[in-house]
Amino acid sequence: MIERYALSPIKEIWEEEEKYKRWLEVELAVIEAFEKLGEAPAGTADTIRRKAVIDVGRIQVIEAEVDHDVIAFIKAVTERLGDEGRYFHKGLTSSDVVDTALSLALKRAGELIAQELRRLIEDLREKALKHRNTVIMGRTHGVHAEPTSFGLKMLSFLAEAERNLDRLENCIENLSVGKISGAVGNYANVSPEVEMFALERLGLRPAKVSTQVIPRDLHADFLNALALIGSGIERIAVEIRHLQKTEVLEVQEPFREKQRGSSAMPHKKNPILAERLSGMARMLRSYVIVGYENIVLWHERDISHSSTERLILPDATMLTFYMLRKATYLVENLVVYPERMLQNFVHSRNLVFSQRVMLTLVEKGLSREDAYKIVQALAEKTWREGVDFKKVVSNNPEIKKLLSEAELDRLFDASYYLRNIDEIFKRFDL
Amino acid sequence: MIERYALSPIKEIWEEEEKYKRWLEVELAVIEAFEKLGEAPAGTADTIRRKAVIDVGRIQVIEAEVDHDVIAFIKAVTERLGDEGRYFHKGLTSSDVVDTALSLALKRAGELIAQELRRLIEDLREKALKHRNTVIMGRTHGVHAEPTSFGLKMLSFLAEAERNLDRLENCIENLSVGKISGAVGNYANVSPEVEMFALERLGLRPAKVSTQVIPRDLHADFLNALALIGSGIERIAVEIRHLQKTEVLEVQEPFREKQRGSSAMPHKKNPILAERLSGMARMLRSYVIVGYENIVLWHERDISHSSTERLILPDATMLTFYMLRKATYLVENLVVYPERMLQNFVHSRNLVFSQRVMLTLVEKGLSREDAYKIVQALAEKTWREGVDFKKVVSNNPEIKKLLSEAELDRLFDASYYLRNIDEIFKRFDL
Amino acid sequence: MIERYALSPIKEIWEEEEKYKRWLEVELAVIEAFEKLGEAPAGTADTIRRKAVIDVGRIQVIEAEVDHDVIAFIKAVTERLGDEGRYFHKGLTSSDVVDTALSLALKRAGELIAQELRRLIEDLREKALKHRNTVIMGRTHGVHAEPTSFGLKMLSFLAEAERNLDRLENCIENLSVGKISGAVGNYANVSPEVEMFALERLGLRPAKVSTQVIPRDLHADFLNALALIGSGIERIAVEIRHLQKTEVLEVQEPFREKQRGSSAMPHKKNPILAERLSGMARMLRSYVIVGYENIVLWHERDISHSSTERLILPDATMLTFYMLRKATYLVENLVVYPERMLQNFVHSRNLVFSQRVMLTLVEKGLSREDAYKIVQALAEKTWREGVDFKKVVSNNPEIKKLLSEAELDRLFDASYYLRNIDEIFKRFDL
Amino acid sequence: MIERYALSPIKEIWEEEEKYKRWLEVELAVIEAFEKLGEAPAGTADTIRRKAVIDVGRIQVIEAEVDHDVIAFIKAVTERLGDEGRYFHKGLTSSDVVDTALSLALKRAGELIAQELRRLIEDLREKALKHRNTVIMGRTHGVHAEPTSFGLKMLSFLAEAERNLDRLENCIENLSVGKISGAVGNYANVSPEVEMFALERLGLRPAKVSTQVIPRDLHADFLNALALIGSGIERIAVEIRHLQKTEVLEVQEPFREKQRGSSAMPHKKNPILAERLSGMARMLRSYVIVGYENIVLWHERDISHSSTERLILPDATMLTFYMLRKATYLVENLVVYPERMLQNFVHSRNLVFSQRVMLTLVEKGLSREDAYKIVQALAEKTWREGVDFKKVVSNNPEIKKLLSEAELDRLFDASYYLRNIDEIFKRFDL
Repeated sequence: MIERYALSPIKEIWEEEEKYKRWLEVELAVIEAFEKLGEAPAGTADTIRRKAVIDVGRIQVIEAEVDHDVIAFIKAVTERLGDEGRYFHKGLTSSDVVDTALSLALKRAGELIAQELRRLIEDLREKALKHRNTVIMGRTHGVHAEPTSFGLKMLSFLAEAERNLDRLENCIENLSVGKISGAVGNYANVSPEVEMFALERLGLRPAKVSTQVIPRDLHADFLNALALIGSGIERIAVEIRHLQKTEVLEVQEPFREKQRGSSAMPHKKNPILAERLSGMARMLRSYVIVGYENIVLWHERDISHSSTERLILPDATMLTFYMLRKATYLVENLVVYPERMLQNFVHSRNLVFSQRVMLTLVEKGLSREDAYKIVQALAEKTWREGVDFKKVVSNNPEIKKLLSEAELDRLFDASYYLRNIDEIFKRFDL
Repeated sequence: MIERYALSPIKEIWEEEEKYKRWLEVELAVIEAFEKLGEAPAGTADTIRRKAVIDVGRIQVIEAEVDHDVIAFIKAVTERLGDEGRYFHKGLTSSDVVDTALSLALKRAGELIAQELRRLIEDLREKALKHRNTVIMGRTHGVHAEPTSFGLKMLSFLAEAERNLDRLENCIENLSVGKISGAVGNYANVSPEVEMFALERLGLRPAKVSTQVIPRDLHADFLNALALIGSGIERIAVEIRHLQKTEVLEVQEPFREKQRGSSAMPHKKNPILAERLSGMARMLRSYVIVGYENIVLWHERDISHSSTERLILPDATMLTFYMLRKATYLVENLVVYPERMLQNFVHSRNLVFSQRVMLTLVEKGLSREDAYKIVQALAEKTWREGVDFKKVVSNNPEIKKLLSEAELDRLFDASYYLRNIDEIFKRFDL
Repeated sequence: MIERYALSPIKEIWEEEEKYKRWLEVELAVIEAFEKLGEAPAGTADTIRRKAVIDVGRIQVIEAEVDHDVIAFIKAVTERLGDEGRYFHKGLTSSDVVDTALSLALKRAGELIAQELRRLIEDLREKALKHRNTVIMGRTHGVHAEPTSFGLKMLSFLAEAERNLDRLENCIENLSVGKISGAVGNYANVSPEVEMFALERLGLRPAKVSTQVIPRDLHADFLNALALIGSGIERIAVEIRHLQKTEVLEVQEPFREKQRGSSAMPHKKNPILAERLSGMARMLRSYVIVGYENIVLWHERDISHSSTERLILPDATMLTFYMLRKATYLVENLVVYPERMLQNFVHSRNLVFSQRVMLTLVEKGLSREDAYKIVQALAEKTWREGVDFKKVVSNNPEIKKLLSEAELDRLFDASYYLRNIDEIFKRFDL
Repeated sequence: MIERYALSPIKEIWEEEEKYKRWLEVELAVIEAFEKLGEAPAGTADTIRRKAVIDVGRIQVIEAEVDHDVIAFIKAVTERLGDEGRYFHKGLTSSDVVDTALSLALKRAGELIAQELRRLIEDLREKALKHRNTVIMGRTHGVHAEPTSFGLKMLSFLAEAERNLDRLENCIENLSVGKISGAVGNYANVSPEVEMFALERLGLRPAKVSTQVIPRDLHADFLNALALIGSGIERIAVEIRHLQKTEVLEVQEPFREKQRGSSAMPHKKNPILAERLSGMARMLRSYVIVGYENIVLWHERDISHSSTERLILPDATMLTFYMLRKATYLVENLVVYPERMLQNFVHSRNLVFSQRVMLTLVEKGLSREDAYKIVQALAEKTWREGVDFKKVVSNNPEIKKLLSEAELDRLFDASYYLRNIDEIFKRFDL
C-alpha cells in the first residue's frame, strides 16, 4: 500500500519486523506446549524469549543466500541462542509458523477494522437521530418520487453497516484458527496436543482439518466481507456526491478553511473524498476475485496464493481501514442544508402530492372516478404550463367547495410522509 | 440458463408462471393483512384466490402495450375479478410485490441448494470413512511430500463444504426478508402492521429498513456463498483431475458402459465431469462482481440491478445446483485405486522416509549431526544413481549395525504417517 | 440468454440447428479439400450436401446414448449417407470441427455487433453535429465547472465508440482462424494442406499454431472488446441518467405515448432504458474474468472452458447486440432541452465567468494583483449573499468605469467557451 | 508494490521524484509552445529549466497545507523562479499536466514491458528450435493423447506471446496521447495549437477529444493487454508445474546451488517460481475489473479513478515486468529431460499407437472393419491385463503374417507424429 493510504495502527501490522515478531510468538507458543507436555525442559521458552532478537537486516542477508524466508528467520534467531536452540522450530513445517501467524495478523487487522466500522455506525446513528424528521425528496431513478426523511437515509446506511459488522465478526471468528499439523496436515511430526496448547496460548483454535495450510475459503470470505463494507461505503459516498451536485446542493462535504477546490474557480467545492471512496470500493471488489482463485490449490497445497496474499491482504485491510476512517469523518462533518431540501420540492412543482389530494377528495365524498379525473387534469395542466400544482389545485372551483385553505395546506405537507418513520427507528432502539 | 444445465426442481422456480404465482401469493398475503386489520372485508383474499388465474399469454399481451410487467400482471388478474378487485395491489408499489417475491424465490432456491450440499457432505463423509486408512502420497507443489490418507483429503473437502453450508444457511436466513413499505420505504401508503402480518404469512421477516427495494448487499453476499461453494467443488474437481492424470491414475471418474472418451483412442477415459465443474466455478465467481456493483443504487433505488438479476440470480442458483448434483455423483461413484496409490511411492524412491530414518538413528544413539550427515549422503546417492532409498539404507554397513531388517521395514511403513488421523476424524464425530 | 434480451438476427446464430449447420459446413469444407488434393472422389462433398439433413431431434436421441455431441452429430448425418459417408469426419478430431465452427459463429456475431456499433456512431455523429453549438454547463465532480457544448459530449462518446469499433474489428480479424490439425495440433492425421484449403473455403485462416483447440487468448480479447463497448455505452447511459435528474432535466429518454412511468405519479418519467444499459455493462465486464481463466488450459487442452463458453459467448454477444440497439434508439430519440441547459447556469450564479472577468480587467489596464482581488471579493459576496455574480459585477463602481454594459454582456456569454469547438469537430471531418 | 517485486528500471518510473519531473517536462513543453506562438518571450522555458528544482520535501510541506498536489508542485517550483514564473502553468488545468504526464509514464512502462516480452519471445524461439524434434506425450484432459514435440509446445507459447506483444504495442500507441485542453476539454483557455506543439515536443499526439481527462477506455484496454500477458505466462507456468510433478518429471525449474526446497526433505525441488507466476496472473486479471469501472466517470470527469490508478497502474506494470523477467529466466534455464519424456510413454502402454496400427493393417489389405476389430480386441487385452500394447500386437499371429518386425518398429515410432512439425515452424520463419 502506498504511504498515502496506509494509516496507523493498521499499517504497523504489515511491517516486516511485526511479521517476524508474530513468527517468533508462534514458535514460542509451540515450545511452551512442549514444556507442558514434558517434551522440552521447563523454562526453555522463557530463555529463548529473553535471548531472541529480531534483526531484520540479518534475516535479509541470510535470505539472499538460502532463498527461503523461514529458514533465514530461524537461522538468524537461533544463532544467538545456546543449547535451547534445538527446540526452536522442532518438528515444524514453515507453513505451521507462517500460516498461523497470518491468522494472528488478520485477526488483529479485522478487529481494527471492526472498531472503525463501529465508529461509523455510531456516527450514522447520531446523524439518523438528528435528521429523523428532516424532510427530503425521495428519489427513484434519479427522479423525484415521494418525500422521505434524511434521517431515514442514514438509517438505511446504518442497517447495512450493521450487517457488514456481523459478517466481518463472523469472518474474524472463522479465521481465528491456526495449524501446527506438519507438511501435509496429518500431525506426522507433532501431535495434536502440541497444536492445541500452542494455539490456545495464541488465542486461536485449531483448524478442524488442514493441508499444509489453513484452507483459503476463510481468506476469500474475509475479503468478501471487506468488499461488502467497501460497497456499503460507496453507497454512502454516491448519495453524498448526488446530493452535492450543483443543482441539488442539499449536503456538502466538509471543506477545510485553507482547502482549495480549484485554483481558478472560487465556487468550486468538490466531493473529492466521497469520490475517492467510490474508487476505492472498486479495489476491494477486485481483491475477492483473487481470493476465490486462491482457494483451489493443488493437492496438499501449492504456493501460488502466497505472492498474491503478500499484496492483497495488507492492501485490502489497509484500504478498508482508510475508507472507514474517511467515511466516518465524512458522515460526522457532513454539512446538511435542510432548507435547501425543502426548496428542491419546487422542481417537481408539488406534483408529488397528487395522490394525497385525490384520496382526500374521495374522503370528502367524491367518487374515486371523479376524484381521479379532476386530479389528473390538474396534474397535466401543471406539467404543461410549468406552474405549481398546489396553486392549480387551490384555484380549482370544485375543490374550493370541498376543502378549506387550511385543509389544503395540510395536504401539501411533506411531513405527512414521515408519520411512520418512528416505527422504523424503534427497530434500532432509537 | 441453457437447457443442458437447468435441472428440476430448481429450474421451475425461475419459470415465468412460477414468478407470477409468487406475485399473486404476495398480493394475497397483503389482502389477508388488510382483513386482519379491518381494512378489507373478511373473505376477500379467499374470493380472489378462487377467481384469480395466472394467464401468462394474457399478461404478455398487456405488457407489450403498457411496457410495465407488474401493471400488466395486475390488469390480467383483476379483469377476472369483481368488486373485490379494488383491494388488489391497493396502496402497494411494484417493488413491494416484486422484491418480496424475489426473496421467496431465493429462499426456495437456497434451500434446494442447501439440500444438495448436504448430500455432497454425506457422500464425502462416507468416502472419508471408507478411506480413512488408505495411504496416498501427500503432495505439495505437485511434488511428493509425505504420506497421508486419501480419507483425510475427503475430510478436508467435507470441512470446507460444511463451512459453505453454514454460510449459505446464514445468507438464506438474512435474505428471508420482504418489504411492503411503499415507493421510498417509509410506509407512506401502507402501515408497518400490514407488512408485518403479510410477511409473517409468507414466512418472511420485514427488512429492518428498506428503500424502494430490499438492500442489495443481501443478494451480493448470497452470490458470494454460491461462489465459495463453487470454488470448494472446484478444489475437489482439480484434485480428481490431478489424480486421474495418466502418470498418476490413482482415481478415475465413473465411466458409463456405453460412454465414449474418444472416437479414435480406446485408452481414453477423461475426467470431463471434473473439468466441467472447474469451468463452472469460474461462472459463479464472475457473478459476484455484478452483485457488488448492484449494491450501489442511486438514492432510494435506480433500476440498473434489475436486468442483471434476471440473468445472474437464476443462472447462479441453477448452476450451483447442477454442480452439486454432479459433484455428488462424482464423489459417490469415484473409482479409487489404493494399490496404485502405494505404487506411486516408487516415484520418489522412498526418499519421503528420510526424515524418519534420521530421527531413528538419533534414538539409537547417534548424534544428530552424524545421523544427519549419513542420511544426507545416502539421499544424495539415491537421487544421483536413480536407485531406491530403502535399498541404499539397508545396504549401509553403519546402519546395519544399528537397525535390524524388521526395524527397517517398520521405518519404511507409510501407515506410520496416519497414526494421528483418528484424532482428526474425531473432530467430525467419525 | 433470456428471451427478453435475445434479438434477431444475432440470437439465431446460437440456436442448436444453426450450430449443427456450421459443423456440417466445416465437414464439407474438409471434404472439398480432400477432393482438391485427390484424397476423395470429385463430387463427394456435393453429394453429401444434397443428402445430409440436420435433424436436431435425432441428434439428441443419439447423444443421450453416447454422451458425446459430435459423435451423435456424425452418426445422425452419416446414417443417411451412402458410401460417401466414409469421407465424413475422416481423420478429424471433434475440436477441429467444433472450434472452427465456433470461429465462424463468433465472426458472424462480431460482424453483427460491429454493424450496430456503426449505427450508434452514425447517430452520435448526427447528434454531435446538431448540438455542436448547444451550450451546456460542463461539470466536474458533479459540480459546475465551465460551459461547454452538448455536441462535444456526443463527440466524446463518438470517439470512444470509434476506438471500440477498431478494437472489435481487430478481434474479429484475429478470431477469423480455424484449425484442422488433429488431437494435439500437429497434423498427425490430416495435412496442413487440407487445413489450408478447407479454411480458405470457410473464409478463415489457419491458426499459426494450435493445440487441440484454438488458443483462448483470442476469445478473452474478444470479450474484452465487448466489455469496453459495454462500458462506453454505460458512460452514455450515466450521462443521460444525470441529465434527466429532476433538478437538472436537460434531457429525457424518449417516452412512448402509452408508456407508464408509475401507476401513481403522473410526473414520473424515468430513464429506465439508460439504467438497464448501466446494469448490463456489469454483465459484460464479468464475462472477461471467465475468459481470462479459460486461457490457461492444461497441456494440449482440458475441457473446462467448454461449459462456460456455452454460456458466456452467446450471452455476451447477444447482450452487446441488445445494448447497442437500445443505445442507438436512446441517442436517436433523446429529448434535448437546450433552454433548460441555459437556465441551469443560474445554479452557480454566473460565477463560472469569474476567470474571464478578471482577465478582461487585466487587459483593460489593471494589474493582475488588483484585478484578482476585486473579482475575488465580488465572488465571495455573490456566494455569501446568494445573489447573481453578473449583477454584482455590473454594480461595482470600479468595473463600471472600465467596462461598458455591452462589454459586460459579452463577458457573460457562454458561447465564448465554444470558440474552439470547431477545431475539435474538424478532427472528425465534421 | 512491495519491494520484493519492484524491479529496476520500471520501479523508478513510479517514484515521487520521477512523477514531478514528468510534470515539469509537460509544463516546459507548454511554455515552449507559447514561445513558438509568440505568447511568451523566447528563452523562457530554458531559463525555467535551468532554475527549476524538484524538491520533494518542499512539495510535501506545501501539500500538507493546501491539500492539492499540483498546486503544491507549482508553488514549490515557482518560488525559485523570477518573473518568468508567470508563464508557468499559465492557462492550464491540473489534469492537463497530470494526465499528459501519466501517458508519458505509461508509455515508458509499456515500452519496458514490451522489451521484456521480446526477450521472452526470443527465449521461447530458442527453446522451440532446440526441441523441435524432442518427442513428448501430448495430453488432453490430463490424459495421454498422441505424441507431439516439446518444441511445438514452446511454439504455442511463442505465438501467444507474439499476439500479446501486438496487443501491447497497439495499446501503447493508443495511449500515446496527451491533452492540454482545459477544465472541460474545450480549449477555453489554451488553444489547440499550444497543445499540438507541446505534445509533439513530448512525443505524444493530442487526444482527438478529451473531457477534463484523457478517456479511460485507453487505460482499461492497456490493463487488458497486461492481463493477457499474465495469463499467457500462467499457461507456461502451469505447463511447467504439470511436467515437474513427481510422477511426470519431464522438466524442472532451474535450482540454484545453495537453494533449499525444504529443510527436511532432500528430494524436494519445487516449481516455486512457476507457482508464483500462476498466482500473479490472478492479480493482473483483477486490475482489469477496476479499469473498466474507471471508464464511466460522471460528466466531464469525477475523480473516483484517481485513487485506484495510484495503486493499480504502478502495481500492474511492475508486476507484469517482474513476471516477464522471471518467466524468461524460467524458460531460459529450464531443465529438460527428453529421455524421461519417452519413458513416460510406458504409462499408456503404447496404446497411443493403436490408430496407426489399424490404418496400416488397412493399407496391407484388411478391410477397415476387420482391422478395427482386431486392434480393438488387442487394445482391450492390453488394458485388461496391464501389458504392453506393442508386445500384444507383435505376438498376434494375424498381424505377424502381415507385418515384419521392422515394419512394426516403425509403427511404434513416436517421431512419426512429428512429420508435419516443420510446416508449423516455417510459419515462424524457423
